[in-house]
Amino acid sequence: MPAPVTDVRFRKLAVFGVGLIGGSFAMALRQAGCVERVAGVGRSRANLERALELGVIDEVAPDAPAALDGADLVLVAVPVQQTVSILNAIEPHLAPDAVLTDGGSTKRDVVSAARSHLGLKLMQFVPAHPVAGAELSGVEAATAELFRDHTVVLTPVAETGDRARVRVDAAWRACGARTVEMSAERHDEVFAAVSHLPHVLAFTLVEMIASREDATELFSFAGAGFRDFTRIAASSPEMWRDICLANRDALLAEIRAFQDRLSTLAAEMEAGDGADIELSFELARAARSKWLRGQQ
Amino acid sequence: MPAPVTDVRFRKLAVFGVGLIGGSFAMALRQAGCVERVAGVGRSRANLERALELGVIDEVAPDAPAALDGADLVLVAVPVQQTVSILNAIEPHLAPDAVLTDGGSTKRDVVSAARSHLGLKLMQFVPAHPVAGAELSGVEAATAELFRDHTVVLTPVAETGDRARVRVDAAWRACGARTVEMSAERHDEVFAAVSHLPHVLAFTLVEMIASREDATELFSFAGAGFRDFTRIAASSPEMWRDICLANRDALLAEIRAFQDRLSTLAAEMEAGDGADIELSFELARAARSKWLRGQQ
Repeated sequence: MPAPVTDVRFRKLAVFGVGLIGGSFAMALRQAGCVERVAGVGRSRANLERALELGVIDEVAPDAPAALDGADLVLVAVPVQQTVSILNAIEPHLAPDAVLTDGGSTKRDVVSAARSHLGLKLMQFVPAHPVAGAELSGVEAATAELFRDHTVVLTPVAETGDRARVRVDAAWRACGARTVEMSAERHDEVFAAVSHLPHVLAFTLVEMIASREDATELFSFAGAGFRDFTRIAASSPEMWRDICLANRDALLAEIRAFQDRLSTLAAEMEAGDGADIELSFELARAARSKWLRGQQ
Repeated sequence: MPAPVTDVRFRKLAVFGVGLIGGSFAMALRQAGCVERVAGVGRSRANLERALELGVIDEVAPDAPAALDGADLVLVAVPVQQTVSILNAIEPHLAPDAVLTDGGSTKRDVVSAARSHLGLKLMQFVPAHPVAGAELSGVEAATAELFRDHTVVLTPVAETGDRARVRVDAAWRACGARTVEMSAERHDEVFAAVSHLPHVLAFTLVEMIASREDATELFSFAGAGFRDFTRIAASSPEMWRDICLANRDALLAEIRAFQDRLSTLAAEMEAGDGADIELSFELARAARSKWLRGQQ
């Protein structure tokens, strides 16, 4: 068991949505010795019973008031579109000493929902995006190691209180994550480029090929490059639908920028302009190689 | 040493371009016990000396006549744009009992070059595309196992003789590959969709991000999904420039089809049409999952 990286302690963690993110958060905090008790609440009773069996949670809470009773740390880890109703249900029952975070992949929409539904308790909330594990889902896939050495982006707002900021940051770091702060707007721009656009491109390519009459023959010649390129198209369609809608403006801007870039390449191909094509590819290869070296 | 899958035998293999494909072909045929002697010819003397040291070839041939002297199997494994000049150099010296194949990733252009430059010896040529190992390059990366359980697409033309067809097919199968025949036109359409388009999309995404002022910050938030999606952008820029130009028509058609698809998705996002977005993603995920199951 790794030593805790912080000495933060919580009496009770309430997890709304005990899936990959929610389950892993509970397991990691428990392993770090930072939490005494975990309550889970969610749409699927079967999933919660499974989480109980696996020891991920200590109790199944029937509703928000029961989950929040005595809780001083709350995680909302549900598909983005359900966040509004969950925050609504949380607000009247959130204890004054509790801090609240979430695990959504988009942040402007979460901040906007929190602003509308948390009232003065907005100061207790630190929106978070743990950058990990988008492909698998469900509590069965949860692990105490999910966030280790991964980045968690925190997007506090002007109203966020210092106590919430410190305790939520400490909780994510206790999970083994590196935390980084930025504005929700900037977060959504950055992830539109490096995450949301690639997902959309991968889904679109597979769907385009799959919808053709000769799809079976085409797929039979797809190789390892195609497999890796499209791995992210194995992600949850529901989650990615929500992300497309929640981060619509930034993602539409990226799609347009990408279309322009692709049109430039097509024009170079039409003109037989090999030098410019090679230069673009060389730039891409060099940048990726530099990035990978920096990752190590 | 695996048992040879065919009893085909060659006295001497001449390899034009002893890189990943050329080197692996020589090593695989030698391991299968199908070839007595291998001569290598190429632009880089240092690379040929290395191939000699590694035992991939038995002799460095100074030119095409020397390489072809006594050769009954010839492989052209050079970047696509050099194929014309190599075929030109081969034609006068190709023995009547020799058979000729290549390793190019595009086939219409190779067939057209062969038609212009091989004259009556076109009957000795079977164009081939081994679907393997696009990311690495050079003889150092060559291995006798490169083609094992991979597909090699053969695109013989009407003029191709039966003897060439049988012997070239047997040579690739002796390397452990599965061979499939199709027309050069169909080959180029299929690979435009499942290989060339994904490469172009990956190169374009990385280049777009790399060319921005905030590239360093953007890359710092790129994760495992981005890494896999862009793995094919580590491929040779020279090779992919050639492919873009050699397979221009089919690839441009795919780029346009992809742009249309992406525009449809953007319109659905603008309209807030979550149901259609989710349906597309679901279709993609299901098709990919079915394909992967079929691969195993």
